[in-house]
Amino acid sequence: MYIDGTIRAYVDDASAGVPTPGGGSIAALAGALGMSMACMSANFTVGKKKFKDVEREVRGHLDACLKARDELLRLMDEDTQAYAGVSAAYGMPRETSEQKSARRAAIQKALVVAMDAPLRAVRMCRESLRVLSGLADVANPNLISDVGVAAVLAEAALRAAKLNVEINLKFLKDEELVAATRSEIEEAAREAAENARSTLETVVAAIGGTM
Amino acid sequence: MYIDGTIRAYVDDASAGVPTPGGGSIAALAGALGMSMACMSANFTVGKKKFKDVEREVRGHLDACLKARDELLRLMDEDTQAYAGVSAAYGMPRETSEQKSARRAAIQKALVVAMDAPLRAVRMCRESLRVLSGLADVANPNLISDVGVAAVLAEAALRAAKLNVEINLKFLKDEELVAATRSEIEEAAREAAENARSTLETVVAAIGGTM
Repeated sequence: MYIDGTIRAYVDDASAGVPTPGGGSIAALAGALGMSMACMSANFTVGKKKFKDVEREVRGHLDACLKARDELLRLMDEDTQAYAGVSAAYGMPRETSEQKSARRAAIQKALVVAMDAPLRAVRMCRESLRVLSGLADVANPNLISDVGVAAVLAEAALRAAKLNVEINLKFLKDEELVAATRSEIEEAAREAAENARSTLETVVAAIGGTM
Repeated sequence: MYIDGTIRAYVDDASAGVPTPGGGSIAALAGALGMSMACMSANFTVGKKKFKDVEREVRGHLDACLKARDELLRLMDEDTQAYAGVSAAYGMPRETSEQKSARRAAIQKALVVAMDAPLRAVRMCRESLRVLSGLADVANPNLISDVGVAAVLAEAALRAAKLNVEINLKFLKDEELVAATRSEIEEAAREAAENARSTLETVVAAIGGTM
């Protein structure tokens, strides 16, 4: 489990000429990093007299951000495990026509499994950006740039995870599943971009920055 | 040094109600994660007969990506150290007018120091996106989605680091430095967005995805 390993070990393995950790795992971790900034800004808001009017609301956001962060950290590790199935399927014998057909079926099955972690990362980041858009309005203004960092990274994580769904879709033959998944991730990307933009507009207005 | 600590410890500290690791550190790590995907795709390209025509070019990109990755990992840790100076300056006594003026000067000095790590992260990501735009044209096509992940994360890291420069600029009084820095980071963001877009266009065309 990479979560209990060092940052150096993870980054070294990710950089090497071996398949895992790959883009799906990296995307999930980037999303978790973003959500940790959302948690920090919420943690600097809850329990402070100055923000007691929004205490309940921020606590709700904090719970949601912590759950998203932890789910994304799980997906970071899950993605590396799922990929092993794809490699194994591609490695199956293909001499007889029975072997060829068994291999083809195993590859299709493994691709669906491999797509699962990045697809769940897309969903988690989409959901997270809804939360962030609410958090930006109530978080401690001293920490507002961190809500912005969260929004930038959650959207980027979604887009990176989407690329990892798409690379699997390219080889999937189940047209119905391909169409439904494409439609879902494209809609997720659109919604996420909108929420990220509105969150960032709030942030840059507060810090006098630019989009 | 967080680089030799676990991912869990870093994310937990980042999420907590303490100032560090903050957005500048997180941004640098997100950039390093992106560049690790660029290294992976280059490592799956160099030394292979099939890609021997671009061997020298990809080796050059690989060196640049490794250097960027390692510099961003250093900035992840440096940013947490620089922030301590800002906290210390704000904590200085402010009873007499001498104390007030010493405190003000110390804060201004600390802000310039605190801005340094995210500003260098902005520069590193800008430079990295130039490299990625070249890498996308020559990397092993099987790893092209990982070049896309690298571009998405490098641009997001730049934007996140930029927010952390801007939050310091907000309190800086040296107007000349403020203007020069704003101009640099806005130009960096524009150039990075262009390079990220062109890299992603190459990637999505190859995998049949959408922007």
